[in-house]
Amino acid sequence: MKHCDTLIAPRWCVPVQPAGRVLEEHAVALDDGRIIDILPRADALQKYQPSVTVERPDHALLPGFVNTHTHAAMTLLRGISDDLPLQRWLTEGIWPVEKRWVSAEMVRDGTELAIAEMLRGGTTCFCDQYFFPEVVAATANDAHMRANIGTPIIEFPTAWANNVSEYLSKASDLVHDRFADHPLISTSFAPHSSAALTDDSFRDLRVIADQLDIRVQIHLHETLGEIERAVAETGKRPFARLADLGLVNRSLIAVHAVHMNDEEIALMADRGVSVAHCPKSNLKLASGIAPVTSYRDAGVHVAIGTDSAASNNSLDMLSEIQTAALLARARSNSADALTAADALRLGTLDGAAALGLENEIGSIETGKAADLISIDLAQINTQPVYDPISAIAFAARADQVRDVWIAGRHLLENGELTHMNVARILARSHEWRNRIATQTGRPNE
Amino acid sequence: MKHCDTLIAPRWCVPVQPAGRVLEEHAVALDDGRIIDILPRADALQKYQPSVTVERPDHALLPGFVNTHTHAAMTLLRGISDDLPLQRWLTEGIWPVEKRWVSAEMVRDGTELAIAEMLRGGTTCFCDQYFFPEVVAATANDAHMRANIGTPIIEFPTAWANNVSEYLSKASDLVHDRFADHPLISTSFAPHSSAALTDDSFRDLRVIADQLDIRVQIHLHETLGEIERAVAETGKRPFARLADLGLVNRSLIAVHAVHMNDEEIALMADRGVSVAHCPKSNLKLASGIAPVTSYRDAGVHVAIGTDSAASNNSLDMLSEIQTAALLARARSNSADALTAADALRLGTLDGAAALGLENEIGSIETGKAADLISIDLAQINTQPVYDPISAIAFAARADQVRDVWIAGRHLLENGELTHMNVARILARSHEWRNRIATQTGRPNE
Repeated sequence: MKHCDTLIAPRWCVPVQPAGRVLEEHAVALDDGRIIDILPRADALQKYQPSVTVERPDHALLPGFVNTHTHAAMTLLRGISDDLPLQRWLTEGIWPVEKRWVSAEMVRDGTELAIAEMLRGGTTCFCDQYFFPEVVAATANDAHMRANIGTPIIEFPTAWANNVSEYLSKASDLVHDRFADHPLISTSFAPHSSAALTDDSFRDLRVIADQLDIRVQIHLHETLGEIERAVAETGKRPFARLADLGLVNRSLIAVHAVHMNDEEIALMADRGVSVAHCPKSNLKLASGIAPVTSYRDAGVHVAIGTDSAASNNSLDMLSEIQTAALLARARSNSADALTAADALRLGTLDGAAALGLENEIGSIETGKAADLISIDLAQINTQPVYDPISAIAFAARADQVRDVWIAGRHLLENGELTHMNVARILARSHEWRNRIATQTGRPNE
Repeated sequence: MKHCDTLIAPRWCVPVQPAGRVLEEHAVALDDGRIIDILPRADALQKYQPSVTVERPDHALLPGFVNTHTHAAMTLLRGISDDLPLQRWLTEGIWPVEKRWVSAEMVRDGTELAIAEMLRGGTTCFCDQYFFPEVVAATANDAHMRANIGTPIIEFPTAWANNVSEYLSKASDLVHDRFADHPLISTSFAPHSSAALTDDSFRDLRVIADQLDIRVQIHLHETLGEIERAVAETGKRPFARLADLGLVNRSLIAVHAVHMNDEEIALMADRGVSVAHCPKSNLKLASGIAPVTSYRDAGVHVAIGTDSAASNNSLDMLSEIQTAALLARARSNSADALTAADALRLGTLDGAAALGLENEIGSIETGKAADLISIDLAQINTQPVYDPISAIAFAARADQVRDVWIAGRHLLENGELTHMNVARILARSHEWRNRIATQTGRPNE
C-alpha cells in the first residue's frame, strides 16, 4: 500500500472536467497539497494508506469556487448604502466612507471577514482589487487562502500612493519582491476603470504588465453611463480606447462587461479577453444584465465574481452561480442557455482560467492543487437528488458547504473554520461597524 | 403581572407594518396563538409573567413568509428536468412522471417534504395547487402549517375527478364540509390555466366561487407562447377572456403574470387583482421577467411565490424575496425600484393580502395571529449589520431562520423542527426518488 496525506471518500465526485461528469463512489487521494489519484472507492481503500481518511457519504466533492471579482475589505460596508445606481452609490454612499476610514488596519480586518465568509461558502480563490494590496495579500497568506491581488492604479493620490508612477512602482515591488513564486498568492494590475487613467498612464501600465506577464483587471462597460461619459470626454467607448492603447489581449479581465456590442464581443473573443461576470451586483445597482450567452457563443471566456459585499450584499458564490444560470436564460430567452454544469464550470474552472491558473486549480484532476470542497446534499432543501450537479447549481445553499481544502490543507472541517479566529473577526467587524456608523448618522450598538 | 404564553425578546423587531420600521430591544407577547402586545423589552419584563421566555439577542423577529404559489407535492420532482422551456418542461419532463406516479400517498409525502423545507426557511403560510387537495390540506393540518389549498379544476379526467362538474363538486365539498372555519386552512379554486377550461366551465366556476367567496388562482400570461396559443384558439388573450367571463376581480390571483400590457395592468389595478410573482421559476423556464415596478406603480397588488421545487429548484422565500428585489431593478433600470423594505413586505403582508388574510397574518401587530420567525444575523455572512432589513432582504440565508411560530406554536426551535419527523420524511423522499428515477432511466441508489 502507498502512503498519502488524505483520502476523501464522498458519495459523488463532480470533477467539472470533463463537463457534466459525475463519479459515484469514487475517492480522491491527496498528497503534498496535490491531487494524486481519483479512483473507485474500493480500489482506493486497497491501494492507499492515508494519514487521514475523510468519509462523506452524503456529500458531493467538487473543485473550490473561484471568485474572480472582489473588493474584500468592503465587506465591512455590507448594506451601508443599498438603493442607489452605481455612480451615486459610489459618490454619495461609498467614497465618503472610504475616504475617512480606509487604512491598513481596516483593510486587514475587512479582508479577514471576507475570507472567512468565502471559505465558509466554498470559495478557495479570489481575485481582489483594493487599497493596501500588500495587506490583502498578507491577510490571504495568513489564512492559507489562494488569491490574485490586484494593485490599485489611479490618477489621483490616496493613502497608498501619490501618483501613477508611484502606484506602478509599488505594484511592481509587490509582484517582484514580495509574492514572486508564492504558492498561493499571485498579483495583477487593477486600474479602477478607463476614466481613472490618462492614455500615457495606461501606456506605462501596459509596458510593465507585459514585462511582468500579469493580468490587468478593470471595471469595463459596467453601466451605460460610464460609456456615455467616456464618449463625451475622449470620443471613444472605453473598450475601444483600451484596444487602441494595446490593452485588449489575453491578460485583460473585463470586470462586469454588461454592455458590449457585437463588434466588441468579436474582438474580445479574438484577443482572448476574460469577463468577470457579477450578476447580482449588476442587478442590485441596476447596471443591467450581461450578455453571457452571446459571450459564450462567440468564444469569449466568462468567469463569475461576487463583487463586494457592499453591492451584492454577500460573497456567496453558490448564490452567484445560481443567479448567473437563471439570468442567462432570461437574457437570451432560452431555458438551456446556461445549464447547471455550465454554470458550475463558470464558477470553478473558467474562473481559474480567467486568472491564468487553469493548469493549477478549477477542476479535480490528477496533478492539480488540492483546492476542493464538499457539499452536503442530504439536507431537506436538496432532497431528493436526481442529479447532483443540478442539486448543487439550483438548490444547495452556502451553509451546505461542509469542508474546504486549499492546497490540501483542511480549512473548513464539518462546517467549522479551522485556521481562523471567528470570534475575533466578528468582534473587529462590530468595532468597525460602530466607528463607521457614527459617520452615517446611525446609532451606536 | 399579567400571564402570557410566550414572550419573545429579539435584538430587533421588524413588524413590516409600518413600512421600514425597526424596533430595537422590544419584546413581543403571545397568548392563545395571538400577538397581544409589542413593547419595550424592559417594560415587558415588568408587565408579563410568561410561561416561556425566548431570548434571541442576535436575532431579528419578523412575520413569517407567505409563499403565494406552490405545487408542494412536486418537491419530490426537484431537479428531475432542468433545461427546458415551460411547455416542453411540462409535456416532456413533468407530465409523464406525474401521470405515472401521482397518488394520494405521493401527494402526502411530497407535501410533507415541502412543508418541512418551508418551515425550516421561515415560510408560515403557503398557497398550493395540486391534485388530491384534501391530502395537501390534511398534511398541512397535521404539521400545524397555515395554508390556502387550491383545488384543481380542469376539463380532462385525472385520478381525482372525471369532469368539471365533479371537480367543482369535490372542491365545494372540501370548502364547505372539511375546512370551513378551520383556524389554519382556507381553500381556493385553482383552474390550471385559461386553456384548461371551456367558457361554460369558467362560468360555472365563477358562480360557485362567488357563492363561496373564495379566491381563484390561475397560471396567467406566464409565457408569450401561452398568449399566442390562446389568441389562435379563442381570438382573445387569456386575461381578456377571463375578464369577459367575469373572473377579473379582487378574488383573482394571477399567478406569474409575466406578460401584461398597459391596458391589462390598468384593469388589474382597477379590479383589485393580485399577482403571485414567481421570479426564479420565470427565469429558470425562460418565461421572462414580470413588470413588478409597473404593477406597483399602477396600484396592482403583488405578492411572491416560489412555484414548485421542480422549476425553481427550492422553496426558499428569502432567496425569492432577494431575487424579486434584484430583478425589479434590472427590469425597470432603477436601483430603488424595490427596496429591501418593499421586498420584505411583498413576501409577508402583501402575500397575506393576496390570500385575503391581511387582517390575520403578514405583520407583527397586536391582535394578529402569532405567525412569526426569527433570523440570526450574527453569522459571518450578515455581519456587520447597519440595517437589519437590508441584512434580511439582501444577505441572510434560509439556514439563519432559527425559530418559527404559527398561531403561537413553536414549530422550529433553534433550527430544529419540533413537530415533524425529518428522518421519516427524508426516507420517504428517498424511496420516491428511487421509484421515479427508474422511469427516467436514472440508476437506483
